[in-house]
Amino acid sequence: MAESMRGMKRTCRCAELSEKNIGEEVTMMGWVQKQRNKGGIIFVDMRDRSGILQVIFEDGEINEADFAKAEKLRSEFVIAVKGKVTARSGAVNENLATGAIELRAEELRVLSESDTPPFPIEADSKTKEELRLKYRYLDLRRPDLQRNLIMRSKVATLIRQFLADEGFLEIETPMLTKSTPEGARDYLVPSRVHPGTFYALPQSPQLFKQLLMCSGYDRYFQLARCFRDEDLRADRQPEFTQVDMELSFVDEDDVMDVNERLLQKLFKEILDVDIELPIQRMTWQEAMDRFGSDKPDLRFGMELKDVSEVVKGCGFGVFTGALENGGSVRGINAKGQGGMPRKKIDALVKFAKDFGAKGLAYLAINEDGTYKSSFAKFMTDDELKALVDAMEGEPGDLLLFAADKNKIVWDVLGNLRLEIAKNLDLLDKNVYKFLWVTEFPEFEYSEEQGRYLAMHHPFTMPFEDDIQYLESNPEKVRARAYDIVLNGTEIGGGSIRIHQDDVQEKMLRALGFTDEKAHEQFGFLLDAFKYGVPPHAGLAYGLDRLVMIMAHEDSIRDVIAFPKIKDASCLMTDAPNVVDDKQLEELSLEIAKSEQEQ
Amino acid sequence: MAESMRGMKRTCRCAELSEKNIGEEVTMMGWVQKQRNKGGIIFVDMRDRSGILQVIFEDGEINEADFAKAEKLRSEFVIAVKGKVTARSGAVNENLATGAIELRAEELRVLSESDTPPFPIEADSKTKEELRLKYRYLDLRRPDLQRNLIMRSKVATLIRQFLADEGFLEIETPMLTKSTPEGARDYLVPSRVHPGTFYALPQSPQLFKQLLMCSGYDRYFQLARCFRDEDLRADRQPEFTQVDMELSFVDEDDVMDVNERLLQKLFKEILDVDIELPIQRMTWQEAMDRFGSDKPDLRFGMELKDVSEVVKGCGFGVFTGALENGGSVRGINAKGQGGMPRKKIDALVKFAKDFGAKGLAYLAINEDGTYKSSFAKFMTDDELKALVDAMEGEPGDLLLFAADKNKIVWDVLGNLRLEIAKNLDLLDKNVYKFLWVTEFPEFEYSEEQGRYLAMHHPFTMPFEDDIQYLESNPEKVRARAYDIVLNGTEIGGGSIRIHQDDVQEKMLRALGFTDEKAHEQFGFLLDAFKYGVPPHAGLAYGLDRLVMIMAHEDSIRDVIAFPKIKDASCLMTDAPNVVDDKQLEELSLEIAKSEQEQ
Repeated sequence: MAESMRGMKRTCRCAELSEKNIGEEVTMMGWVQKQRNKGGIIFVDMRDRSGILQVIFEDGEINEADFAKAEKLRSEFVIAVKGKVTARSGAVNENLATGAIELRAEELRVLSESDTPPFPIEADSKTKEELRLKYRYLDLRRPDLQRNLIMRSKVATLIRQFLADEGFLEIETPMLTKSTPEGARDYLVPSRVHPGTFYALPQSPQLFKQLLMCSGYDRYFQLARCFRDEDLRADRQPEFTQVDMELSFVDEDDVMDVNERLLQKLFKEILDVDIELPIQRMTWQEAMDRFGSDKPDLRFGMELKDVSEVVKGCGFGVFTGALENGGSVRGINAKGQGGMPRKKIDALVKFAKDFGAKGLAYLAINEDGTYKSSFAKFMTDDELKALVDAMEGEPGDLLLFAADKNKIVWDVLGNLRLEIAKNLDLLDKNVYKFLWVTEFPEFEYSEEQGRYLAMHHPFTMPFEDDIQYLESNPEKVRARAYDIVLNGTEIGGGSIRIHQDDVQEKMLRALGFTDEKAHEQFGFLLDAFKYGVPPHAGLAYGLDRLVMIMAHEDSIRDVIAFPKIKDASCLMTDAPNVVDDKQLEELSLEIAKSEQEQ
Repeated sequence: MAESMRGMKRTCRCAELSEKNIGEEVTMMGWVQKQRNKGGIIFVDMRDRSGILQVIFEDGEINEADFAKAEKLRSEFVIAVKGKVTARSGAVNENLATGAIELRAEELRVLSESDTPPFPIEADSKTKEELRLKYRYLDLRRPDLQRNLIMRSKVATLIRQFLADEGFLEIETPMLTKSTPEGARDYLVPSRVHPGTFYALPQSPQLFKQLLMCSGYDRYFQLARCFRDEDLRADRQPEFTQVDMELSFVDEDDVMDVNERLLQKLFKEILDVDIELPIQRMTWQEAMDRFGSDKPDLRFGMELKDVSEVVKGCGFGVFTGALENGGSVRGINAKGQGGMPRKKIDALVKFAKDFGAKGLAYLAINEDGTYKSSFAKFMTDDELKALVDAMEGEPGDLLLFAADKNKIVWDVLGNLRLEIAKNLDLLDKNVYKFLWVTEFPEFEYSEEQGRYLAMHHPFTMPFEDDIQYLESNPEKVRARAYDIVLNGTEIGGGSIRIHQDDVQEKMLRALGFTDEKAHEQFGFLLDAFKYGVPPHAGLAYGLDRLVMIMAHEDSIRDVIAFPKIKDASCLMTDAPNVVDDKQLEELSLEIAKSEQEQ
């Protein structure tokens, strides 16, 4: 039986009461966290989003009918209690904000009863994620998810306030827009009015925000939902939120300055962490050379060293072969890990192979100065000593080497470095290391497509000196792009944009667009560029990832209210689902025969 | 030729300079609004989103090369000017914020040239909307659109700040969600991973926000993009923005209180208009009886009067016939319009017929007390006098009557009332009349579907006393719903929600859902209702419409950056468009044959 709250008015939330309120009559509403009957006195922990309040039902203080109701309370019942705030009669609970007080109930209403939930509502749930996602509305009651979503809300509010104060305008861009083949796969939306045609959901508001700069809005921002129908990878969501901004009449320093101050404010106000400004900058080339990654985690060292010069004449064919094929030999020094058991080293070799290495050469320096190594036998003592010296190897160290094309060497050692750090517990979530990575290559070559792709996107301004190579020597072209990296995660990225129609057309040609195709796809942007365009630049953060790191979570699903699982479905609503034939008819669509038959 | 801004740093925006800056060296960047050469001195009006600044290029103050560039400047070129702020040498321009100063140029760079735009960039454009929408990036440079979008951004910022301060959490809900047949037509998104199934874009976050209340988030808000694939009507957009909120442990007064304070703050800070609180409330029944509308415009009177009792025995068959069929006879008094020419009256009759009237009976009271009337001949003098008295008719007035079923009578006279007010210019955009309309009917009967539909939505709580009639007598059930109306436009609406699974199931049954269908569609909501649900309520504003009224515009297209036209297409990007066959293949979709052949 559910009772009405008619005539009652809630005073405040549970944890908003404190010793200051002792003696006050209050009306509190919330959920029963647990109920205990201790010798005829009923103790109820009452919960809401603010926390827990202890409520005492004692016969005599409350009428019999209400006391009888209190006896029957169970977890997750929703109740309203009128009563008086008093100092806690028992021991003060230091773990609770309200641990020094209790509410002595004078009236109780049961606003809603509850079945026994399929899993307990508590922090650090051990319940399987699948079950939690099916009952997401219960999962979301858990204090850790509540803390995450409350933090996310605060982050969004702070970002918006900061950007508004800095003269940014929040402008909404369309969700039903045009499909463009560059980039990831689009989600499509069939048009009913124009049969056979489709809208696409935006992968980002990129073109629209650039047009807003053309239109003179000067500074734009939006917390924009973006969509990518990508193949399923761990911890990707088909829809995600971007903190998107664009600025006119600026260069890299302007963009970085405003964003550094934004991040500083955010981390101070949310986490009480001081970020020292300016944030360190590093070119893409240096990041790859030192960390084997364009998003280096700077919380620990273990940097890559290029030992190609040292090993170029050695007797180990794997090393010299890689060099002869235009590759390199690089290593990392896992300090103090020389005693790592063979089994664990084998696991690292397997890990390296997963990233494309043909193998992983290792050399452990025993405490007595001798070596345990997979390749020592192929090299002279002098060669080995030179190599160990180059790696600053000392007794007790473990040296790991990869020899291959640069791209593979970086990838293998960059990931190995992270894996070892993870195993050694070097990744302190309370340490925040920011880094700007700059001077990215404009293009990367796709073996699969047999052409160059834009590493950032086709609207990224090349370095002025490199524009001449756009068509003749794309590999040489550096992009005026910048990523902001936090603890090894790219939390945002952006670039100075091309604002000249001739440069933009060259760029599209370098990407393999015919002029006709370029105009079909981006005609409106190229047209806009004919009418006076300000130099402009922008940046976008992945809000989900940023909040995930701030909340010390390992999955973005833990900072999204209603996430989807790996196959892009929602376990709670069962979306996507089959629709009525009538709906398809209206859209002039048919399911392909091959699928119908399955 | 475009020059680089390298080495230059913009000081501020144009209209941020004032007499305080006289004597300062500044660097300004913006667009050329116009250029004039007066006797060898070049005057340029430089424009950015803040306004206009006059720049003077005089030979001798600036080097020859730059002066030569200044001579060639044309409208919409983007320029950077270094120079000194001085008092204006000519007459002060009172119409400009910067009218007392000018910038004497010492250096000029042309950052971007411009072709002649297809229409002039100026306020109150006379250019056809179609052309403006094709070149929206130029249209958006016009000062009135800039003012609107800047206002919209301010409105959004203020709303968010207010709600955050009131303890609301901003929580994002999914865009890729489940298709539900109740309500308007969904936009569908085919799933690639699960061939033959579809997501739907949300018509509103209704179910998710109710689940967030189940989950204990207490107060939620979101500026949510919503989608409806509706048949094309004037001034509808396929996507629109809702200011969406939901609150737990509240009743109507709580929701109205927080929203009245929100509106008060908004109108004060944006328009410097004082809204007196509390806002007037009126039941749906009273609104229909007095204004023939559930969103009455209170800026003027001309209320409806029910004269059924007065005419029930009269000789005019149209009146008595309507009464015999269970209808009513009602009229409005257009004060002082008795002299309206026959042609104009005929236009009103036609207007009434468009709203379903079989005709429109009129009676003009001449200055000498005689009548000019379409029906006077059917009635006795006494009957006429009684009718005129009931309508408080005086010489010079025009009385207009509709006789039909209530629904038609209300609709006809409600719209006629607005039409006459529009013709008489009674609708002052600087006057803001707010109204809460309450106690809506829970259901309305759909002749087309032969069943009851929810007037608000299926989750609206009925009045407690009326729950008993849910299945037996739906017409009698009043809903605890409320709309907020401004100047005859519904700018928002909401309700107390059903939070009991048994009531919700009854409600769905009353709407014709089988239990099976109800669980298939809303199973997760009905399940959630089993685990302790707080009483909750909410409201949502149409942000586009709210800003439209605040900006004194007549179309929401004027407060949306990139709107679509009536057929739901975008003239700038040409969305929706044809996509690659490969994209359809991946989605296991085919265009229906009948369409392919066309």
